[in-house]
Amino acid sequence: MTLPDAAPAIVLVRPQLAENIGTAARAMLNCGLRDLRLVRPRCAFPDERANRAASGADAVLAAARLYDDVASALADLNVVYATCPRDRDMVKPVITPQAAIESVKVALAAGSKVGFLFGAERTGLENDEITLADAMVPFPVNPEFNSLNLAQAVLLVGWEWARSHDETPSRRVRTGRGKPATKSEIDEFLSRLESELDACGFLRNPLMRPVAIRNLRAFFLRARPNSQEIRTAHGMLTGLVERPHATRAGKSRPDRRDREG
Amino acid sequence: MTLPDAAPAIVLVRPQLAENIGTAARAMLNCGLRDLRLVRPRCAFPDERANRAASGADAVLAAARLYDDVASALADLNVVYATCPRDRDMVKPVITPQAAIESVKVALAAGSKVGFLFGAERTGLENDEITLADAMVPFPVNPEFNSLNLAQAVLLVGWEWARSHDETPSRRVRTGRGKPATKSEIDEFLSRLESELDACGFLRNPLMRPVAIRNLRAFFLRARPNSQEIRTAHGMLTGLVERPHATRAGKSRPDRRDREG
Repeated sequence: MTLPDAAPAIVLVRPQLAENIGTAARAMLNCGLRDLRLVRPRCAFPDERANRAASGADAVLAAARLYDDVASALADLNVVYATCPRDRDMVKPVITPQAAIESVKVALAAGSKVGFLFGAERTGLENDEITLADAMVPFPVNPEFNSLNLAQAVLLVGWEWARSHDETPSRRVRTGRGKPATKSEIDEFLSRLESELDACGFLRNPLMRPVAIRNLRAFFLRARPNSQEIRTAHGMLTGLVERPHATRAGKSRPDRRDREG
Repeated sequence: MTLPDAAPAIVLVRPQLAENIGTAARAMLNCGLRDLRLVRPRCAFPDERANRAASGADAVLAAARLYDDVASALADLNVVYATCPRDRDMVKPVITPQAAIESVKVALAAGSKVGFLFGAERTGLENDEITLADAMVPFPVNPEFNSLNLAQAVLLVGWEWARSHDETPSRRVRTGRGKPATKSEIDEFLSRLESELDACGFLRNPLMRPVAIRNLRAFFLRARPNSQEIRTAHGMLTGLVERPHATRAGKSRPDRRDREG
């Protein structure tokens, strides 16, 4: 995944705890965001506690800019979103984080600069500060417990940003070093297994036999074996049936004591 | 938004910091998750630091269950996902958090119990622990800085869970107490504004006039005014033109000193 350099700014208004600034910086860098702006932090900044919490995202903290008020922090931006636990009673667009990121990408592509506003830990943004934003972005979480930690809120915006650039398929199977087995490799093994199950009497019920075989094939195909795994399965079958390396001499069928004892 | 009671369990394997357990519990409750399981925490638990970090999610901590090993923590679950920064070299399905949550909802609807495994802060999950899971769920974040804080990783799973239940429209406009204005209310105001702009000479260029009016109408419609805002606009226009409450007597046009001074 490649995350572009042109990305939203994160504006923290009056943050109270240096740890939260640090964890927010870490979350930002996790998601490819680097433009951190702080409006009148109520904790010391820079501060060693912020750097410890940033766990390696010190570059984001070092580049952070300080402002005296929200308007100055937003001055060079074209589009601003105000995050909030709930939308306020204000005539203003309300959009989901996902939709906000879609709009952000359109705005950035047109050369605009974009930012997200985050209020202080306990008090959030003031109404006058939300007024400066183009839209409100509430987080649709548990309505009975919707107060997010500051850095967690920053992460959610960053996550929507990062995942909007992610092109990995939603589902895939790692095949390790082997390629997925061919149909003939699978078929050859299953035919051999059927023969052995016939020989040992497991498939002795002629009414059940077709169903049992169908289920067995479905199970193997569902597991999507690779060529190496088919070779291993052949080896296991040989081991179980022919017992070429059996340590207990002369046994033609497995000693069951291990399982029964 | 209503979040269902049947929800995934969160299994933290050997967490190191009580604060992270607390922040994870807060993130869980933010997202409507309540089943927290801890495998051999390396910090004291229960612990006051966890409760402080949970910021009110104490019920999740109080209900947390402790286990001696991963297998015991997963024993009653039917489907388990192992979260990890990167997928390991292991023949196992790899799915995105979003796709995992889609599968979780299908499994829960069929009566299965589901969980997500999270490794310790520094070391992550061991390969043998990932082997117990049905699929790996890496987080597609900045490949150059992909180590997420433990509670942040928990939040991302919770967020995908919560947002998958969110039915708020992706975009809407709060109209406050007023209804959106009718077309005739808007038209009446704009016609009056045009007359006044004609009267004061602002629209004196006959070539530009149609364009100026079109742009003005587009601007007003884009703002999606409500009825109250149209009434306020009428009041402002009356104030500017007729100056019924002007404090500076006898002025027929505004005193420009305020702006020019």
